[in-house]
Amino acid sequence: MAATAARALAPGNARLKSGLGVRRFFRKGAAPMPTAGLAPGYVQGNLAILPAEAAGEFLRFCHLNPKPCPVIGLSDRGSPRVPALGEDLDLRTDLPRYRVWRDGEIVAEPTDIREWWRDDLVGFVIGCSFSFEEALLQDGIPLRHHERGCNVPMYRTSIETAPAGRFHGPMVVSMRPLSPAHAIRAIQITSRFPNVHGAPVHIGKPELIGIRDLAKPDYGDAVPVGEDELPVFWGCGVTPQSVIAAAKLPFAITHAPGCMLATDLRNASLAVI
Amino acid sequence: MAATAARALAPGNARLKSGLGVRRFFRKGAAPMPTAGLAPGYVQGNLAILPAEAAGEFLRFCHLNPKPCPVIGLSDRGSPRVPALGEDLDLRTDLPRYRVWRDGEIVAEPTDIREWWRDDLVGFVIGCSFSFEEALLQDGIPLRHHERGCNVPMYRTSIETAPAGRFHGPMVVSMRPLSPAHAIRAIQITSRFPNVHGAPVHIGKPELIGIRDLAKPDYGDAVPVGEDELPVFWGCGVTPQSVIAAAKLPFAITHAPGCMLATDLRNASLAVI
Repeated sequence: MAATAARALAPGNARLKSGLGVRRFFRKGAAPMPTAGLAPGYVQGNLAILPAEAAGEFLRFCHLNPKPCPVIGLSDRGSPRVPALGEDLDLRTDLPRYRVWRDGEIVAEPTDIREWWRDDLVGFVIGCSFSFEEALLQDGIPLRHHERGCNVPMYRTSIETAPAGRFHGPMVVSMRPLSPAHAIRAIQITSRFPNVHGAPVHIGKPELIGIRDLAKPDYGDAVPVGEDELPVFWGCGVTPQSVIAAAKLPFAITHAPGCMLATDLRNASLAVI
Repeated sequence: MAATAARALAPGNARLKSGLGVRRFFRKGAAPMPTAGLAPGYVQGNLAILPAEAAGEFLRFCHLNPKPCPVIGLSDRGSPRVPALGEDLDLRTDLPRYRVWRDGEIVAEPTDIREWWRDDLVGFVIGCSFSFEEALLQDGIPLRHHERGCNVPMYRTSIETAPAGRFHGPMVVSMRPLSPAHAIRAIQITSRFPNVHGAPVHIGKPELIGIRDLAKPDYGDAVPVGEDELPVFWGCGVTPQSVIAAAKLPFAITHAPGCMLATDLRNASLAVI
């Protein structure tokens, strides 16, 4: 994701320094861009919008798989509002770009979904690693994909999610190479944030979770892992999107990769201790 | 340590089920035995007794090195009492066995140090891994050295302690092999217990902290580490004893290995969250 471009833009644009500002920016039709680096300090979320007939099943899936699918917001049936995440928030207009799915295939990538909206849709906002990455960086823990200006590497694993009806499949994880001391500290820090993936699901030994080659991620970009580092793996918000695609629902909408929903919640407020 | 024997004994002996009971048992002259498994649920501590002229320097050493040397109790000069750890507690009589040191050499291993006591001595009680091991076991995390009925393996590392006057030298660590998932959970659990060594100081890759062969511990017994496990390393209470020996003080007293001080504190009460 072009995080660097977004960060470079944000300081000069006061509107992009809060979740509210970012939502209004895109709502007014700004050219889409990844949201990494925008609204620093504010929680961003993955978005999944499903017909009500599938929403109960999906909520059950999320409940059973809180590490990859922590639900931080839910809309009422037919409503694009999630007041708990932002007073004026509108799921139809506030993200830079969306993906519209039919039968498991992407049929459109619009910047506004008002024309796709239906009165049986339910919106799910799912926590995102941006929040815990902020906490890691504030603690002085360097993140390789930030240093390299690329996307975090993500892998499909042999860890099966707990199934719920049509929703099942492998857990997707993100990986960050860390020194052993930083890995221990990162486990402590991310444990405080269960709503944004929480503690890692695995550390070291990628082969134990079905990852054959760290240099070949299934999503995102490869980053080098030093001889003096351990790969540390967190549950990833790509999991619900991958599971929704595999379920081949007649209709669904998600955010486009990297184009998250900015909220009014502060990252720090998600810490449970 | 003959932990199994001690555990087998304890259930039949109500006196050995509390810290107070264990202290009185040894005070009355019971045959010395390791204290692992005695007074379950109660904090046990490493003991170091130093002349007052060295005590300030040693306290500074402990303060600078809280991972291996967490001080949980201090006596007044010349007093064998530590009321914070037990009302009737007497450092001179309440441990199964002691080591008396002169110029860095062990000169006696008595079961009572009343005849060695001096009015310039200061007692230090230092947290012990028994407390966090109880929390790990209660969480369902198996400990290899418990399964095998042997002592935990301990290693001198290339991690230098922060020096304080005469006190300096390598950190000694204990090692427990854990699955990656158990390692992550163990980091969470032990982080709650900073007074008994706290979070690990290292994980995986023993060579990075100067350990050449896990099968050859410097203290304790080797245990196998599975291909699907990571070695996890905690600061160890042998560090202060090793540092005291290296300082070649004219006089010092410590507990004998495995023969700890049982206190009235509950392990659970040490959790900071």
